[in-house]
Amino acid sequence: MKSWISTIPLFAGLSTDQLNGLAQICEDRAVLRGEMIFSDGDEGVGFYVVKTGMVKIFKVSWDGKEQILHLLGPGEPFGEVSVFAGDRFPASAQAMEEGVMVFFPRESFVSLIRGNPDLALNLLAVLSKRLRKFTALIEDLSLKEVPGRLAAYLLYMQEVRGGTMVLELDIPKNLIASLLGTIPETLSRVLGRMDKRGLIASEGSKISIKDLNGLRDLAETGGGL
Amino acid sequence: MKSWISTIPLFAGLSTDQLNGLAQICEDRAVLRGEMIFSDGDEGVGFYVVKTGMVKIFKVSWDGKEQILHLLGPGEPFGEVSVFAGDRFPASAQAMEEGVMVFFPRESFVSLIRGNPDLALNLLAVLSKRLRKFTALIEDLSLKEVPGRLAAYLLYMQEVRGGTMVLELDIPKNLIASLLGTIPETLSRVLGRMDKRGLIASEGSKISIKDLNGLRDLAETGGGL
Repeated sequence: MKSWISTIPLFAGLSTDQLNGLAQICEDRAVLRGEMIFSDGDEGVGFYVVKTGMVKIFKVSWDGKEQILHLLGPGEPFGEVSVFAGDRFPASAQAMEEGVMVFFPRESFVSLIRGNPDLALNLLAVLSKRLRKFTALIEDLSLKEVPGRLAAYLLYMQEVRGGTMVLELDIPKNLIASLLGTIPETLSRVLGRMDKRGLIASEGSKISIKDLNGLRDLAETGGGL
Repeated sequence: MKSWISTIPLFAGLSTDQLNGLAQICEDRAVLRGEMIFSDGDEGVGFYVVKTGMVKIFKVSWDGKEQILHLLGPGEPFGEVSVFAGDRFPASAQAMEEGVMVFFPRESFVSLIRGNPDLALNLLAVLSKRLRKFTALIEDLSLKEVPGRLAAYLLYMQEVRGGTMVLELDIPKNLIASLLGTIPETLSRVLGRMDKRGLIASEGSKISIKDLNGLRDLAETGGGL
């Protein structure tokens, strides 16, 4: 059991002792094709990791239409956000084929964390590390597109505000990031690059436009930096 | 202090009590433009959140060249991965402009977690939630490109293995995801969609090719599903 647990990304980098602790509280649950694992609104009594098979996470809308949120395969956890937060499940989980799910009961998991704060810290480290990796990937994927969209956004703001060359961004940066289909970290990076290239000067929420034509080029070509 | 702390994404959704606990252990540190906050290899004595200003995270290569890893602005944490894991800092941090950093000393943070396992669980919930959000964003960004690349990869494997229609994927799925510039979650989803469209049948690490011409079309057009 331990060796398989060590391959779960959620637990990458935990010590052998910590992995053994987790192996002791979890249990295998065989599921049949089409079997419901939990339903929207059920109490979050524990979270799962797919061992074999595939799971569909979905919601059913008011008119009975099913919306698939995720398809999960081996090694992927589900239900863990609600379980960590002590919430009910906000969606349903159904096995798409015969398989085995590893179940971590909330009560045992919480006891383990209570008795072993280092496990909590290590789990925080694992999740933070994955977040950093995902951030880098989002940057890679959006660096081709975000600069052009950001340039267009700045030009729009500049026009709306009567042609001023100094913009005060009065909506939070994470909201601007969402508008542009990216994350605040990438937005910072793109602003930094625009600054370095002399297109703008960025200081906190204040952005001074330094090269209006350069920004227009960037917005029109939709290219990268 | 508390109200600003509640806007930090790393702490989104914590209770007022938990935010107050965090507010009590942190301290503001004013930095000057160009000031080093920590250096590569320093002990991870605590982590920081940018309150005002901008911070550069960088490494210096063996030939003295600086490689910028991240540019961070208000609300963004840095150093937290090493601090959670009890490691040294793997890169350096320098203020790019005058500003204020909020410092969370490791020792006080660890004590807070030890005395308050619910805080640990809530932080795990916050990070898991951000991971889910980032996963969805990566899916959005890569769903245009990953199907074509995956189709090309499957066709390549099929040829290398002498034209067999049943492929056994003998390298881990997260490695394949990296090869294709995405994450395992998106790879699962794309495999699921290809399965649904009748291009392949996917079961664990076994992939049967059902529509060779369809896969070729997908690989050539580089399009989405």
